Amino acid sequence: MPYAFAQRVGGMGGSAIREILKITERPDIISFAGGLPAPEMFPRTGLAEAFAQVLREEDGLALQYSSTEGYGPLREYIAGVMRQKGVAVTAEEILITSGSQQGLDLVAKLFLDPGDVVATELPVYTGALQVFRSYEGRLKAIPGDEHGPDPVALEIVIRESRPKLIYLAPTFNNPTGMTVSEARRRALVVLCEKYAVPLIEDDPYGDLRYSGIPVPPVKAFDAGGRVIYLGTFSKTVAPGLRLGWVAAERELVARLALAKQGADLHTGTLVQRALHRYLTGSDSGGHVEAIRREYGRRRDAMAGALNGTFPPGIQWNEPEGGMFFWVTLPAHLDAAELLPEAVAEKVAFVPGAAFFPAGGGENFLRLNFTNSPPPLIGEGIGRLARVLARHWSG
Amino acid sequence: MPYAFAQRVGGMGGSAIREILKITERPDIISFAGGLPAPEMFPRTGLAEAFAQVLREEDGLALQYSSTEGYGPLREYIAGVMRQKGVAVTAEEILITSGSQQGLDLVAKLFLDPGDVVATELPVYTGALQVFRSYEGRLKAIPGDEHGPDPVALEIVIRESRPKLIYLAPTFNNPTGMTVSEARRRALVVLCEKYAVPLIEDDPYGDLRYSGIPVPPVKAFDAGGRVIYLGTFSKTVAPGLRLGWVAAERELVARLALAKQGADLHTGTLVQRALHRYLTGSDSGGHVEAIRREYGRRRDAMAGALNGTFPPGIQWNEPEGGMFFWVTLPAHLDAAELLPEAVAEKVAFVPGAAFFPAGGGENFLRLNFTNSPPPLIGEGIGRLARVLARHWSG
Repeated sequence: MPYAFAQRVGGMGGSAIREILKITERPDIISFAGGLPAPEMFPRTGLAEAFAQVLREEDGLALQYSSTEGYGPLREYIAGVMRQKGVAVTAEEILITSGSQQGLDLVAKLFLDPGDVVATELPVYTGALQVFRSYEGRLKAIPGDEHGPDPVALEIVIRESRPKLIYLAPTFNNPTGMTVSEARRRALVVLCEKYAVPLIEDDPYGDLRYSGIPVPPVKAFDAGGRVIYLGTFSKTVAPGLRLGWVAAERELVARLALAKQGADLHTGTLVQRALHRYLTGSDSGGHVEAIRREYGRRRDAMAGALNGTFPPGIQWNEPEGGMFFWVTLPAHLDAAELLPEAVAEKVAFVPGAAFFPAGGGENFLRLNFTNSPPPLIGEGIGRLARVLARHWSG
Repeated sequence: MPYAFAQRVGGMGGSAIREILKITERPDIISFAGGLPAPEMFPRTGLAEAFAQVLREEDGLALQYSSTEGYGPLREYIAGVMRQKGVAVTAEEILITSGSQQGLDLVAKLFLDPGDVVATELPVYTGALQVFRSYEGRLKAIPGDEHGPDPVALEIVIRESRPKLIYLAPTFNNPTGMTVSEARRRALVVLCEKYAVPLIEDDPYGDLRYSGIPVPPVKAFDAGGRVIYLGTFSKTVAPGLRLGWVAAERELVARLALAKQGADLHTGTLVQRALHRYLTGSDSGGHVEAIRREYGRRRDAMAGALNGTFPPGIQWNEPEGGMFFWVTLPAHLDAAELLPEAVAEKVAFVPGAAFFPAGGGENFLRLNFTNSPPPLIGEGIGRLARVLARHWSG
């Protein structure tokens, strides 16, 4: 049946990655494709106790409609965590969202008219692409290097394209694993202030550092209130709770709350209270420590397997945290063409082109290391090496 | 700090009702203002058991990322419930949403370009107003009477204004409590088919019937697939779960799923599985029966109190279900002006003007009867009658 959809629907494609994931969900495939945490690490016992306590000890208000801004004690807790990271915020500057994806959607809804420019690093998280396209935003790439976006290049982009928003995932980036240096973070904030451009700092992986020296969030340098920080419990607790937050200036939080009221009234009352119980009533810090140890082992296992099996001339980063290796193949190889062969060998990845909306990136591929235990990582990388060896001998 | 917001932000006001609710949340006030279910009726024990079972018996996938369309068994269950109501749908025609408010938002996102017309009954649910304004839609009222929107008038509206969407809450309407007759339902679907206009059937209260003869959903008459049905568990289980659904043609569900992917990836995995356990593993039907009995008693208590205390010349409906009485004051009285006096007497309501976006409706007021036990209903209506008696003696 033909429908008269809105203009924006033309830009609302599916995530290329989600399509790949459907193919690679067969249990016999070792998948490095999904950006998935390890389900065996989820704190099921702690969460079970927290849900039971809320439903046993609190009254019906734990299941009632509640405020759009979020559960007060959870906002307080998050503000405290942010302050420990060097970000001076109060609970009133925190909005609870249904995952950080919703934070991204609400910010875009607040700022983007059709045709407005969003300046973003490339490659870029596909979920952000989906959001900006759904508001008919135009993407403009910020040139950069291994330390992050180049401030000189960003200033030129700002002057020429007048972006309404800048979008970055500066810590253990998806897909590159890269972290923007502290000097660059300071320089970015100065530019945002100078040109009055809001910067979205998407930080799902910041707590997952396995080595190297911690860098404060970009928002820690944000005296002028230009940085809109997106956080999530998806990687430190569990993604199936769908709980994230926005930390931003009070006026922005108020505007975002109005947008959220229209979008879904509020995030689940019960799940917010149960998460707060879990965070404050169990050893949630120790649990994050355990996740870090395990994911660090998995990163090392993948680094070792890559070093041991991949042909020379193929390069990759070794990320200090997060969930991904970003592999650079020789320029003549197309990762998307190799994927069917890899699937035939029962191993999967995401071809890099998915992260380059204007084309390019064919010779990259993304490997997730958090969702497979070390023995499977070794086996899977070995299979992938055999596929590569058919096309490239170094 | 000045921000360069998108155009649509100009239309994104707060809900007038939510502001009133903040004033009337003082525990000494008997509030008929909120559209709240009775929290003492929430099935806390059944839900506690369901959450415990999922977290104990299922593996980490109950806390993992999951599909945007929703948890398969829950979609199957809902499709079965819809079929019992006379709506021929399969699980593939169900999208799980974060409350029916999200369904409304996603449908508007799919269909509305700035300036597009939405034809709607008046008065109208304020949460729908918020959504349509946030996409810069223009509202056009559909004239009607006590049986619902007038099909002849609607056809004129369609021809003259070419609406992109029609929005109705046809069963135990918020705020009027009114139910559209079966004959009108059939006539509405014929018009939607003739002019290829999608109709949003918002049905949060359909299961809360206390008397009278059940009427099938509008979608039960929808052979052509023009009706987009919005359902929710907020009134039959608990609103703090934030779980609702859209039932629509398969192509629309696919499009809505793409929009939802950008908006929040998916609705919580754990809460969907726990709700499914609760619905299938406990006497959830008996629980809805108990809610109906209790709310029926409360409706009767309010009807009795209104009959016994309100001055002559003031009118109200007696709803067969849902959550509201809709009171018509003499034309010269303004309910908003009476509200401060009522709050001084420790009773609250929502002035009718909140539901008329283009002005008018000053002499109406909405009374919720589900959130107060019968003795408080009697006491509160008595207080309100004393306020009214100062301004009107019949």
